[in-house]
Amino acid sequence: MSTARMLTGDRPTGRLHLGHYVGSIANRVRLHQRYESFFIIADLHMLTTRNGRQDIEGVADNAREMVTDVLAAGVDPARATFYLQSAIPEVGDLNTLFQNLVTVPRLERVPSLKEMARDSGKEEMPYGLLGYPVLQAADILCVKGEVVPVGKDNAAHVEVTREIARRFNHLYGEVFPVPELIPSETPTLVGTDGRAKMSKSLGNAISLSDDPATVRRKVMGMYTDPNRVRADVPGTVEGNPVFAYHDVFNPDRDRVAELKRRYRAGRVGDVEVKEELAATLNRFLDPIRERRARFEADRGLVDQLIVEGTERTRAEVRKTLVEVRRAMGLSSAYTQVRRRAERYRKRAETAA
Amino acid sequence: MSTARMLTGDRPTGRLHLGHYVGSIANRVRLHQRYESFFIIADLHMLTTRNGRQDIEGVADNAREMVTDVLAAGVDPARATFYLQSAIPEVGDLNTLFQNLVTVPRLERVPSLKEMARDSGKEEMPYGLLGYPVLQAADILCVKGEVVPVGKDNAAHVEVTREIARRFNHLYGEVFPVPELIPSETPTLVGTDGRAKMSKSLGNAISLSDDPATVRRKVMGMYTDPNRVRADVPGTVEGNPVFAYHDVFNPDRDRVAELKRRYRAGRVGDVEVKEELAATLNRFLDPIRERRARFEADRGLVDQLIVEGTERTRAEVRKTLVEVRRAMGLSSAYTQVRRRAERYRKRAETAA
Repeated sequence: MSTARMLTGDRPTGRLHLGHYVGSIANRVRLHQRYESFFIIADLHMLTTRNGRQDIEGVADNAREMVTDVLAAGVDPARATFYLQSAIPEVGDLNTLFQNLVTVPRLERVPSLKEMARDSGKEEMPYGLLGYPVLQAADILCVKGEVVPVGKDNAAHVEVTREIARRFNHLYGEVFPVPELIPSETPTLVGTDGRAKMSKSLGNAISLSDDPATVRRKVMGMYTDPNRVRADVPGTVEGNPVFAYHDVFNPDRDRVAELKRRYRAGRVGDVEVKEELAATLNRFLDPIRERRARFEADRGLVDQLIVEGTERTRAEVRKTLVEVRRAMGLSSAYTQVRRRAERYRKRAETAA
Repeated sequence: MSTARMLTGDRPTGRLHLGHYVGSIANRVRLHQRYESFFIIADLHMLTTRNGRQDIEGVADNAREMVTDVLAAGVDPARATFYLQSAIPEVGDLNTLFQNLVTVPRLERVPSLKEMARDSGKEEMPYGLLGYPVLQAADILCVKGEVVPVGKDNAAHVEVTREIARRFNHLYGEVFPVPELIPSETPTLVGTDGRAKMSKSLGNAISLSDDPATVRRKVMGMYTDPNRVRADVPGTVEGNPVFAYHDVFNPDRDRVAELKRRYRAGRVGDVEVKEELAATLNRFLDPIRERRARFEADRGLVDQLIVEGTERTRAEVRKTLVEVRRAMGLSSAYTQVRRRAERYRKRAETAA
């Protein structure tokens, strides 16, 4: 194992679905054995788009569900440090110091932020949302993360982290690694309704924790080729979410190719293709369900992992902040004032 | 004395000049007796436009000079709490939490920020500079400031503080006062060169700590009516910095009116008007010089005031942050996780 540090994580919005699995979790399961892995539960990031009291009230339970899903997906708890971002106030301190190392036009060029504002129903960009990549830089660099797995959406964010690390090192001396991006190999998974992206709020998601009957029901209701009114009408495979899922989750490539041929020729019914997909997904999810059941039977363990991880991470972050303030000269500024005051006090005592 | 808290302060860019006095210090001298007064030494704000290692290296000495000037100007050290902003990392934490309570377009409507970017030679707006009013909100509200003296430039900034306080209280319950603005009664002081604003970096400033000869030399070299080549040419009083200073600093209103009449009629020389101004300014500065000499003879006292003030303020800020995290539900999120982990640990111990 390399001792390089990896940082990755999610906002605690609840249970994870197949889209999360394909977009990031699979990657993490593969990578976390190779690196010293930090998994952030990014509730401060959640606040950039959802900051009502009721959103925050869900954090504790959502964090537990999310970590349970990640463990169920195959991350070894002995090889990962989970932590709750908001429980480490030093991250906000670092975020404030980093804000002067990047410009507004640079952040406005990050593609996904406007989309995030729109998706969350904001008419105007919240200042904190424009600074999402700066807070991410604080997350990654507060533990001196050296590798960051990225999907399509956040590669541009982590570029900002690299720029901030370089800029800091240039101004104040080498403190931070310039983290490497590890691109995810799989594309975005469409929703069961064929829309661009699987998302719980769009109601087009299959959760990692859905039971077999729910998975089957969701698959049987999936959007397919709308022009195909009968099984003997030739169908379109491209952009058809049922086949997109077969491509990702069905390990029997020959069988998928055969189904596609028959679908295009009008020689297989939607029902048959969907039944096979449901079976495929349930086979894929079975080991995840088994592990989830074990962690659910031992729920406090997940909480304990989060607490231990948070304490451990906070100690690391505090060390980093000491180094940051020393490098910038901020600690020396106050130390100078304090020393002079101390000398003054001693002289006054001696004189008395 | 009201027990209402007042927050005010400056970036530690060095010694203060007459422009600072007119724009803010005079106001503070008048107000600080009425309120519980916090004076911030805003070095984190300095970083929004000047963040080089060498800028930060000047903070300790500049902070001392600045506080010495404020004391020399007449602020009673027994009635003021001076503190160094960067020595209170919780301010960065609060700043990060406040960023989601204001939008980018709102901050872009704050008039002076673009000017600040331009003046500091930035081609693109630093993200932290756009957030200057958010960090100010953190400064004011971290001590629950209730009144803020404002000049022309920062009234619009403090409006943002009021909006953030209201927004926070609306979302999470009443935690913050909505601070009142106390507008300064005096206008901006022009520089000795007649340019819009007195500023050390423009070389058109008279410092509060300048000695009498320096003040006289600077006044004799002041810009006046450029069309007035001889004393018998009628001169223009309007926009003439020499008369602008007479208007502000010369308590003998009749004499100023007489000088203006004679100047307009071409019946007084520039030299005479300037000699009188130099004498006026030196009379105004004499008590400030005397007090400065006392504090200079006892320099460590100023350092000690800063250290005591910073420790005291930090204790207040920590209390505020506990309240903020409780109101937002952030502390409860982590407390829930910790309690569940604790119960789990105890059960495991009992079982063992």
